[in-house]
Amino acid sequence: MKFSEFYAPTKRDAAKQDSVNAYLLAKAGYISQVAAGVYALLPLAVRSLQKIEQVVREEMNSIGGNEVVFSALQPKSTWEKSGRWDDENFRQIVYIDQDADMTFGATHEEPMSIAVKEKVQSYRDLPVILYQFQTKFRKELRAKSGLLRGREFRMKDLYSFHPDNESHHEFYESAATAYLRVFKRLGLDAYRVKASGGVFSKEYSDEFQVICPTGEDEILVNHKTKTGFNKEVEADISVAEKDKLERVKAIEVGNIFHLGSKYSDAFDLKYLNKDGVRKSIVMGSYGIGITRLLGTISELFHDQNGLVLPKQVAPFQAYLIDLTNSKDGVGLYNTLTKAGFEVLFDDREMPAGAKFVEADLIGIPVRLVLSPKTKAENAVELKERSSDTSTVVLLKEVSKVLEKIFS
Amino acid sequence: MKFSEFYAPTKRDAAKQDSVNAYLLAKAGYISQVAAGVYALLPLAVRSLQKIEQVVREEMNSIGGNEVVFSALQPKSTWEKSGRWDDENFRQIVYIDQDADMTFGATHEEPMSIAVKEKVQSYRDLPVILYQFQTKFRKELRAKSGLLRGREFRMKDLYSFHPDNESHHEFYESAATAYLRVFKRLGLDAYRVKASGGVFSKEYSDEFQVICPTGEDEILVNHKTKTGFNKEVEADISVAEKDKLERVKAIEVGNIFHLGSKYSDAFDLKYLNKDGVRKSIVMGSYGIGITRLLGTISELFHDQNGLVLPKQVAPFQAYLIDLTNSKDGVGLYNTLTKAGFEVLFDDREMPAGAKFVEADLIGIPVRLVLSPKTKAENAVELKERSSDTSTVVLLKEVSKVLEKIFS
Repeated sequence: MKFSEFYAPTKRDAAKQDSVNAYLLAKAGYISQVAAGVYALLPLAVRSLQKIEQVVREEMNSIGGNEVVFSALQPKSTWEKSGRWDDENFRQIVYIDQDADMTFGATHEEPMSIAVKEKVQSYRDLPVILYQFQTKFRKELRAKSGLLRGREFRMKDLYSFHPDNESHHEFYESAATAYLRVFKRLGLDAYRVKASGGVFSKEYSDEFQVICPTGEDEILVNHKTKTGFNKEVEADISVAEKDKLERVKAIEVGNIFHLGSKYSDAFDLKYLNKDGVRKSIVMGSYGIGITRLLGTISELFHDQNGLVLPKQVAPFQAYLIDLTNSKDGVGLYNTLTKAGFEVLFDDREMPAGAKFVEADLIGIPVRLVLSPKTKAENAVELKERSSDTSTVVLLKEVSKVLEKIFS
Repeated sequence: MKFSEFYAPTKRDAAKQDSVNAYLLAKAGYISQVAAGVYALLPLAVRSLQKIEQVVREEMNSIGGNEVVFSALQPKSTWEKSGRWDDENFRQIVYIDQDADMTFGATHEEPMSIAVKEKVQSYRDLPVILYQFQTKFRKELRAKSGLLRGREFRMKDLYSFHPDNESHHEFYESAATAYLRVFKRLGLDAYRVKASGGVFSKEYSDEFQVICPTGEDEILVNHKTKTGFNKEVEADISVAEKDKLERVKAIEVGNIFHLGSKYSDAFDLKYLNKDGVRKSIVMGSYGIGITRLLGTISELFHDQNGLVLPKQVAPFQAYLIDLTNSKDGVGLYNTLTKAGFEVLFDDREMPAGAKFVEADLIGIPVRLVLSPKTKAENAVELKERSSDTSTVVLLKEVSKVLEKIFS
C-alpha cells in the first residue's frame, strides 16, 4: 500500500483521552471517536482486527465451530421469555427502540436458542456449535477506557448445545485450550482465571485475563501454572494455594460459561435421547472481545514514540522509506509486495524526519530505509520496531530476512 | 466440511414466505427468520456472503478504496446538523434509542464527513475514498421481500471526497465500471440505469438493476447497450431512444450518487486549494446491498428442486455423496480438500434419496457421487447442478476436472 493513497490520519498532538489505548490509537490514525465509548475504525485498525478475527476464526473452526451472523435487532419479547428482562442490571444496558419494541443485541443466548430449536430433535442432531463475529450494543455508564469498554464493540461469541453436562464439560475444556492458543498467537500471555458461575450455574466459569497495570480487574495469579482466581471466588482458595499467588491488575479478554439448561428450558429446547426420553439441552457460552483485544494490545505494547505491535496483529509487516531521489523505493516496494509481504510505502512528499516519527507511531514491526549510503551498497537499512539497533541488508536478501522475521 | 459437523437446518416443508428468496433460503438452511425483515444468517449464507464481500472488496480496492468500519451508533445531533432530521421520510426510517439521543446507522454520509474533517486540510490530502461493509438499520414498513428489503441488512457503502466536480466525475465513472465488474463476477447481468439525483444534486445518479420478474422496480432498458432509465427520468428520454427500450421489472443491486457539497457544507468540510483559497469538498456516495445480492441471486437462480447458485457465490464448490460402504468417500474428500477445493461431504447416516434431495436444494454447483458401480471403475459420477446430464470421471482426474469447471 502506498501511503499517498492510504487513509491514516495520524496526529502530531492528539487530544487527551481517558485511556492509553484510545490516546495512542487515535494519535496513530487507527480510530476516530464518534461519541463516548463509540469509535469509527479506520483502515489501520480494520487491517489489525481482520488479522485478530482470522486467528480467532481458525481456532473456533478447529473445535468444530460453525460461523453464523445473527441479527442485532431482537424483539423485546425474546428477553421477556427468558426472564432476563426482569433483571434490572441487564435491562439497563440494553438499547431499545423508541417505538418498535425492538432491542439491539447486547448478547445472543436467547436468539441462538430459538434458532437451534428449529433444527434439533434427537441426540443425533447434537452437539451444535455456533459462533459469530458480531457488533454488540451496551449502554455502558463508564465508557471511559477506549476500546476496552465500549458502548458499541466487536465480539466473537460462541454458543454450544450438548446432550448432557459431561459432553458440555468436554467441549468446555477444548474451548479453554483453543482460547489459550488464540491469545498466544496474538502475542498475549493470558491466565486462565476461575470465576463464579454467576446467576446461571453453580459451577465455576473461567475468565482469560492479561496482566496489565491499567486493567480494571484485580485478580490473584499463579505465575507458574498461568492460572488464577478472581475476586468472586477468593474465599474458596486454600491456604497452601494462597501462598503461591500474587495480586495483579488485569484485563479480561475472554470468558467461558456453563449455562446449564437455563435458556434451553426457557425456550423449551429439548431433544429425544437414545431411549426416546425427552431431555433438556445443556448450553455453554464463550466470548472473546475482538475490539477489546486491540485495545489490550495497545495498552501493553508501546513505548514513548508510539505503538510497538506484535507481528501477528500489526496492520502491515514493513514500513518503507526512500531517502534517495531514485526509483529504488518503488522497485523494492513492488518486489516485496509481489512476494506477498504487506508493505506500507511512505511515498508522500514530506520531510524524512516526519516519516520516521510516523513509522514509530504506527508501530509496524519492521522499518526499511533506503538511503544514498545503503543505495551505494545495493542495500537497505532494516530496523525492528522493538529493537534499538538496525542492520544493513542487501536488497536481494530482504525477502529472505523478512521471511525469517515473520516465520 | 463434513455435513455431520455442519449446521444447515434444511427443511422438508418450509413455511410459506412473502418472497421466493426467503422461502428458498430458509428451506435450504441458509437463513432463519427473527422478525419481519430480520434474519439470522446461518453458515451456508455466511460462506456465500463472505465470497460476495471479497469480490466487492477487491473491486473497491482496485479503485483506491480504503476499508473502514464506522459505528452503527450515531448521535442524533449528527443528523440535525446536516438537516436530514428535518426530512420526515428520513426520520421515519431511523431507529432511535428510547432515552439516549442515539440513533442506529441508516446511512453514513454524515459520520464520514465528520471523520474526514480531522484529516483534510489541503488539496494534497484529497481525494479520500472510504468504504465499509456495515450493518444498516432501517424501519422498513414493507419488509416483505426476504433479503431484498430488510430492517437490518448488510451493505457496502463507499464515500468519496474530491477537490472539485471534475475529479469527482472521473472517480464516479471508474466506480461505475467497477460496479459492473462486481456484478459480472457474481454471475449477474446488471444494467446501468439513469435515475434522478434526488434531493442532493441536479445531476443524474445511476442505479444498477438486474432484470427479475419479481423485482419491485419498473424500468426501461436497452438490451444492446445494457443501459436504461428509471421512472423518475422517463420524461427526459428522446423519441428515437424510446423505440429501443423495453419496460421490465428489476431489482436494484447498487447505486451511485453525486452529493455535491451538501454534506461538506453542512459540516464545514473545506480545503485549501493550490492558490490558498478555501473551497468546498465535493462528495459522492456509492452503495451495494450485500445481503440483497444474495436475495437477488436466489430469486434468479433456482429450479423446482431448489437453488442453482452461480459458482462464484455458492457456499461450497462440490457436494460429495458416498453410496459405497467403504472409506473411498473420506479419501476423496481429503484429497479434494487438501487440493484447496471447498467440499461439503454428506457423511450423515440417512437414506441416499434424502441426500440427493438436499444436494439439489442447497444448490452447490457440482455433485459428486461414489457408487458401487463407479467404485469398480475407480471413478465418481459428476453432475453439475445447472445441467441434466452427468459424466463419470476417474478418481485421479477429479481435481483436474473441478479446476476446469471453477477456472
